[in-house]
Order: sequence, then C-alpha cells, then structure tokens
Amino acid sequence: MTGLDPPHRALVFDVFGTVVDWHASIVREGELLGAQLGRPIDWPAFARRWRAGYQPALSRVRDGSIGWVNVDELHRQLLDGLIAEFGLEALTPAQREHLNRVWHRLAPWPDVPRGLARLKAGRIVATLSNGHVALLVDLARFGGLPWDCVLSAELFQAYKPQPEVYRGAAALLGFEPHEVTMVAAHPSDLHAARDAGLRTAYVRRPLEYGLGEPFTPAPDADFDIAVDDFDALAARLGD
Amino acid sequence: MTGLDPPHRALVFDVFGTVVDWHASIVREGELLGAQLGRPIDWPAFARRWRAGYQPALSRVRDGSIGWVNVDELHRQLLDGLIAEFGLEALTPAQREHLNRVWHRLAPWPDVPRGLARLKAGRIVATLSNGHVALLVDLARFGGLPWDCVLSAELFQAYKPQPEVYRGAAALLGFEPHEVTMVAAHPSDLHAARDAGLRTAYVRRPLEYGLGEPFTPAPDADFDIAVDDFDALAARLGD
Repeated sequence: MTGLDPPHRALVFDVFGTVVDWHASIVREGELLGAQLGRPIDWPAFARRWRAGYQPALSRVRDGSIGWVNVDELHRQLLDGLIAEFGLEALTPAQREHLNRVWHRLAPWPDVPRGLARLKAGRIVATLSNGHVALLVDLARFGGLPWDCVLSAELFQAYKPQPEVYRGAAALLGFEPHEVTMVAAHPSDLHAARDAGLRTAYVRRPLEYGLGEPFTPAPDADFDIAVDDFDALAARLGD
Repeated sequence: MTGLDPPHRALVFDVFGTVVDWHASIVREGELLGAQLGRPIDWPAFARRWRAGYQPALSRVRDGSIGWVNVDELHRQLLDGLIAEFGLEALTPAQREHLNRVWHRLAPWPDVPRGLARLKAGRIVATLSNGHVALLVDLARFGGLPWDCVLSAELFQAYKPQPEVYRGAAALLGFEPHEVTMVAAHPSDLHAARDAGLRTAYVRRPLEYGLGEPFTPAPDADFDIAVDDFDALAARLGD
C-alpha cells in the first residue's frame, strides 16, 4: 500500500459464490436427500441449472416486469420448474421447502473464516448481496461469519447491478463510494460497483460451478485488486 | 418457559441505555477532555442535558416538522446548544466534532458481552435503535457486540416509537411480529413495540442517568419478561 492507494475503509461482499460455495453445498445436501429417494440424481447438474435461472429471474424484477420478490420466492419458482427435469417428483412438500432453503445453509469457502477475521480487524466488513436480510442472517449464523453489518439489495428494493444498491450501501455505512470496496467473484458485479464509484476487489473462485467446469479468470487490470482468496486480500490490504 | 410461551425467535435491542451506558461513557470522555481544558465542568449534568434534548429532537422528525436527519446531526445541534451553558467555548472545532462522536464510542453495560453471547447461541439478536446504521456499526465494533444484524430506524426513515420501525424489523428478519421480542430499558419503547405486535422484555437499568439519580422501575406486569440484566434474560429464555 502507498499513501495514494484508496483507503478501503469498508469492504462489502458479494455472498453467493464469493463468500459461500453454493455448488458444493447444494450437491452435498442433494446427495443426502437423494439417498432417501432411492435413485441417482445428477446433483452437480441440478445445482448449476438452479443457479442458471437466478439472473434471468432477478432481471424480471430489475426491469419491472414483476414487482419485488425476494430470493427465497425466486429460488422456489425455479426449483418447481426443475422437479420433472431431474426426476424429483417424489419429494414431499416439506422436502421441497427444505431443499429450497438450502440457500440459507451454504458453507463458506475454506479461506473465508480466517480471512474475514483478519479483514474485520482493520476495516468494516459487510455483506452486499441480492439475498434478502433474513437469508443473509441465516448464512452468517450457519457459517460463523462475523459481519459488522448485513446489507442487502432488499434494503433498496433493487437488485445488483442496479447502481442504487452500491451507492445505498456506502451511504448507510457513512462513507463516500470511493471509500468502499466491493469484493466479488463476478466481474459484472464489480464493473457495476466501479461505475457506481466504489473500488473493486476481484476474488477468483475457479471452483464456483464445480470440479471440472471451465473457468476463465477476468483480466486483473479490470479491478483495483485481484486475488485468489480472502487471506490474500487481507495481505494485499496490509491487514 | 412452558410450551405456551411465545417462541422469541429473534430479539431486537434498543441500544442507548439498554445495551450501552451512554451516561458513564460521556462522563468518562468528558473528564479526559476537561483535563485538557483546565477547568471543572459538570459532566454528569452535561450528559443528562445532552440526552434530555434527544427525544424532543426526534419528535420534530417524527411529526414531519423537519425532514429525515440522522442522530449524529441531531446530537450536534444539541451539543452546539450546550456549549455556552457548560462553559465549553474553548473546545476547538475538531474537539467538538470528536465529542459529538462519543455516541459512537459508548461502552456496553458490564453484563452485555456475556449475556449477548448466551442469547445469540439460541436465537437471532439484532439492534433496533434510533441510531443510524453507521453509528450502530461503530458501537458494535467498539464494544465487541456480536449482532447477527444491525437494524436501525434509518432503514425505515421513521423513528421509534413509530410502528413501522417495529413491524419493518420483524419483516426484514423474516418473522411475524409476535415471534420477535423487543428488549429495552424504556417502557415507552416497549409499549409501542407491544402495540405493533411484538413481545417485550424490560431490562431495568437503574443507573442509566448516573449514580444517585432517582429510578422508579415500571411494573413487571406491563411486559412479557422483566429482568435486571442480559444474563437474567438468557436464563429466563432457557439459553
């Protein structure tokens, strides 16, 4: 760090894929559930298909074609659309609801507990996720994540990458946008954060979509910081 | 607890006076500052006078006679009004600003760190304060308070005891109002929470206004729970 570097007074984190490993968590719960169902199900493919519906579903809220719907409801609509494709008709209503709430029980990537504790010592750490507050609270409790503050798109009734989410987060934390750094594994999120005036830290998560899936990292030069994990981010910030 | 008791799935906490000891914290900082000023100042009286202006200031926001103003700005207006009365004219602009931000550096009551950790193990714990998010984040970091979530009147652009603050907090946490318990040292806050459908836990804080100040506890029967500290609240809830 030099004196000219931005202060990074607060870090706001994307959560699905950046902080928590949604793919492995869904596959793990699916395998346990599948054992009860008594038939083989391609859970890695199921997890990817479920996730693939997410951005299109958010887009319908962003473009105003439907009103505000939280992520539990969007996930449930998407899940219902996958039941036949993946042979999950035998799931009871209670099992479907439980499966839908797997998004409240996603494990952090292995570097996160230690890295987040280091980062928190030196600056404010908050979520900035399209997940709603109640979901983010459950994830924090599930994974032992010591957020200073849980910020969500829900607070602004807008979904990332809409600029009011990034600017609103900085304002709630009492900072100018340039004092806040968005941390994410997704270039589109970071580009939108940059356009809203925030700094950007790219965390490469090559396993986000599972083992053996292709991964092409974005160019480091697109971001203020680019690292492989939260420990490296802490080291880069001098924490 | 019996099976008929409400679930208390989340506890939302008033902060000034309930979680943190604003009076002793202001007096302590004042004494240190006063030593630099080289003259005796009645800091206990100063702290009480500063606090006494708070509810009338909030009322002007609540009744719409002024637009949304956060607690830092309200405290600063009140502080400026006390400078002459307490002989604080020698304070520099930087010292005045630092003093104003003492509300970000208030120590928790001694029972809070241990009691809050116990309470958090069994249920969600969140702030629900008229303090804004940035201030509550600073207080949490200052006092090591492990909130699951920082909720503030600021998120609803309304100040307690306006009902949308209580109902909005329950909704953000994903609960019905009756599943959420307001924890506060102030009967008026608890009565408003009850009227909004929340459960209530009264924590007696006889020293809130300082040593030797009169204190008359509210009747226990007005609340679902009435206790002397957070440890007793945890014990009462079976945590």
